[in-house]
Amino acid sequence: MRIALIQQKNSENIAENISKLEQNLRACAMQGAELIIFQELHNSLYFCQTEDIKNFDLAETIPGYSTRLFSNLVKELGVVTVLSLFEKRAVGLYHNTAVVLEKDGSIAGIYRKMHIPDDPAFYEKFYFTPGDLGFQPIKTSAGNLGVLICWDQWYPEAARLMALNGADLLIYPTAIGWDLSDTKDEQARQRDAWIAVQRGHAVANNLPVITCNRVGYENDLSGVTSGIHFWGNSFVFGAQGELIAQAPDNEEFNLIAEIDLSHTEKLRRIWPFFRDRRIDSFGDLTKIWKG
Amino acid sequence: MRIALIQQKNSENIAENISKLEQNLRACAMQGAELIIFQELHNSLYFCQTEDIKNFDLAETIPGYSTRLFSNLVKELGVVTVLSLFEKRAVGLYHNTAVVLEKDGSIAGIYRKMHIPDDPAFYEKFYFTPGDLGFQPIKTSAGNLGVLICWDQWYPEAARLMALNGADLLIYPTAIGWDLSDTKDEQARQRDAWIAVQRGHAVANNLPVITCNRVGYENDLSGVTSGIHFWGNSFVFGAQGELIAQAPDNEEFNLIAEIDLSHTEKLRRIWPFFRDRRIDSFGDLTKIWKG
Repeated sequence: MRIALIQQKNSENIAENISKLEQNLRACAMQGAELIIFQELHNSLYFCQTEDIKNFDLAETIPGYSTRLFSNLVKELGVVTVLSLFEKRAVGLYHNTAVVLEKDGSIAGIYRKMHIPDDPAFYEKFYFTPGDLGFQPIKTSAGNLGVLICWDQWYPEAARLMALNGADLLIYPTAIGWDLSDTKDEQARQRDAWIAVQRGHAVANNLPVITCNRVGYENDLSGVTSGIHFWGNSFVFGAQGELIAQAPDNEEFNLIAEIDLSHTEKLRRIWPFFRDRRIDSFGDLTKIWKG
Repeated sequence: MRIALIQQKNSENIAENISKLEQNLRACAMQGAELIIFQELHNSLYFCQTEDIKNFDLAETIPGYSTRLFSNLVKELGVVTVLSLFEKRAVGLYHNTAVVLEKDGSIAGIYRKMHIPDDPAFYEKFYFTPGDLGFQPIKTSAGNLGVLICWDQWYPEAARLMALNGADLLIYPTAIGWDLSDTKDEQARQRDAWIAVQRGHAVANNLPVITCNRVGYENDLSGVTSGIHFWGNSFVFGAQGELIAQAPDNEEFNLIAEIDLSHTEKLRRIWPFFRDRRIDSFGDLTKIWKG
């Protein structure tokens, strides 16, 4: 199966961001992609660099503006597409949500980001209520999509639950970058850790892992931090943890890759991890800490 | 803290294997190691290549021959040491067990391998009853040791539970190798997957991961398979998933490395994964599969 990830640099101009996404979506579909992934919060800047109530104006309903816009295009192109947007669920209730569009333009399902970060320049707890839909794959003509979002990627539990619930692949729209006040060595360690933990999910679950990150510098309008240099590096690992494709760290890129969903069953026969899980001893995974 | 891993090629001559280990233990202690790790089933061949009741003669009690032998040496050298041996717990009841010796020669604690593999050339389910002690770190003067064994390394749950129970580092004595009838590419993918999943545990838990593998070819006495080429590659990852040290794949090696246990708290402040785990939604981790 051919897939595509659209790694993009966004500006304050939402119409322009959307226009670029439309062009990229067309270009990826022309190249035969059956499944196309957008980065986290696809149409705007990463506004969580500061806590500002004006940013709630960016939120939209599902269905709403973005889903209608891309439903039409997706239907025309016949590709399953994963959007990520700022969901306005009710007055004063917002989520960080991925929407999966089936190739006929219908909404196949949504995933609401379960793990919400909060650290300098990533003030997401101000904006997003943690998801309440659990870790349920979304059934599509391109497979059961285990869609998770950004901070979720650090949690082996999230990947495992998607696998246990029947995911055929794991997909992470994301927005992560460097603070350039860190040393080059520290920056490299952070990026490598980010890749390593997700590669680990591929191996542990015998599933492909597809991660689409944004790229380019975005200023911190509050002036508190020096802004974020989103590090790109969108990647695809196969079900054995083998690197299939990786985008550069400094430019917009449509990453096209071939994945083989039949590899999972072969792997699960030679290395049958799921046969042997000691579920009788896993109860404490539902605790925050010992005792 | 300086640590050492003894990556060794064993023969049928147990006395000779032990003699080499003693020499290596002395050599590592002389180089200032405070914590020394043996490979899985330290004193014998990897006998699980075939199911043969004669091999139960290799099992020993705890305390017993090996713990007495190494207790004396460990006390003399003043180093915390992790043995791995075939435990005879009762008549007809055996485990694959790690024993941690405190530097005064006392037994600090044991860990009984929880996940037992069984695939061609690794018939461990014939020999070992799965452990019944859970995932409890062992308290020593070198830290709370999260000792796990080989097949456990593929399970993020095991690493996480050790972390939640207060482990300062994760330690895997192991015995894994290639079937040379696989292609070179497949062999590389297997080794890389093995490294990747454990590196993932380091990142996800902000803990150093120390894995000591055996090396060298061992024949399959039953003739069913072409034997195992143990792939060495013993390694140490730091708490951010950074590679600290790695042994070669084709020779005996005492791998000396420095690890910084204080790095864990620094990481857990900047990337506070443990703050945000969605334990309210983790209940299904105690199921074998959905439904």
